[in-house]
Amino acid sequence: MNPAALTTFLHDNIPLSRAMDVSVLSADAEGVVLTAPLDPNINVHGTMFGGSVSTLGLLAAWSVLHLRLEAEHIANQLVIHKSAVDYLLPIRGAAKAIARLDDNGWENFRTTLDRRGKARLSVVAELLSEGQVAARLTGEFVALLER
Amino acid sequence: MNPAALTTFLHDNIPLSRAMDVSVLSADAEGVVLTAPLDPNINVHGTMFGGSVSTLGLLAAWSVLHLRLEAEHIANQLVIHKSAVDYLLPIRGAAKAIARLDDNGWENFRTTLDRRGKARLSVVAELLSEGQVAARLTGEFVALLER
Repeated sequence: MNPAALTTFLHDNIPLSRAMDVSVLSADAEGVVLTAPLDPNINVHGTMFGGSVSTLGLLAAWSVLHLRLEAEHIANQLVIHKSAVDYLLPIRGAAKAIARLDDNGWENFRTTLDRRGKARLSVVAELLSEGQVAARLTGEFVALLER
Repeated sequence: MNPAALTTFLHDNIPLSRAMDVSVLSADAEGVVLTAPLDPNINVHGTMFGGSVSTLGLLAAWSVLHLRLEAEHIANQLVIHKSAVDYLLPIRGAAKAIARLDDNGWENFRTTLDRRGKARLSVVAELLSEGQVAARLTGEFVALLER
C-alpha cells in the first residue's frame, strides 16, 4: 500500500482518522509516518488535544504492524490490547507520528505467532512537532492467526 | 455546568468530541458520564476504534476534574501528562465512559496545589458496553494555579 492508498484505507475504515484529517507521508513494512493538522484536533488551550495525540500515535503504530503482516502474507486479526502515552510538550501546530518496527522484536513475534497462533508485540510511535518529540505512545497489540 | 452545557462546551472547544458525537449523560463535580455511538467511531473490525475508546475515557476523566476545579473556584491550567488504557473487550455498540473523583486523592491534590501552585492527580474512567467494563483509562493530569 502506498501512502495515498493507506490514507484512503484509513479514512474509509476508521472515520475518526478522516475527522482528524490524518494523512500518510510515508508507509512501508518498516515504518510509517502520519501527519495531522491542528485545527480539527485543537483543545481548550489552543494546542493539540490529548485524544488526538494518542489517536495519531495509535494509527501510526497500528499501520506499520498491519503493513508488515500484509507484506509477509500473514492473515490475521490485529487488535490493540494496551496503550500508554507520555505527553511531553504542548503541540502548537501540525504533528507527525513516526512508528518503526524493531527487527529483534519482530522475529520473536513471528516465531510465537507461528507456534501458538497468537502473539503480542509492542510498537512505539513518536509524535513530533516543530522538530521536537512532543509525545510518545507505546501500543501493545495482539495478532491472532486466521488459519 | 449541566449535561447539555457540557456537551456544547466540549463540541465547541474540542472538535474531535463533535466528530465522535460524544454527549453528556450526567455531569457534576463528583462524576461525569459520557456516551458515544459506534458509527463515527468504528474500526476495520466493525467494533469501536481504540483511538475513540481512549479519547472517550480521556474526555470523561478531564471533564470531571475540570468541573470539580470550577466548582471550587480554582483558576487553573489543566493538562494531561500521561495516560494508560487497558482494552478488555471489543465494543460492538455505543459506549459509556464513567469517571469519578476519589475524595482522598482530591484532598492531597488540593493541599499540594495550594502549597506549590502545581499538583498531579490520576483519574480513572471506565468504559462500559452492554453492561460490561470493556476498557479502563487512567489519566494523570497536572493542574497549574493561575494566581
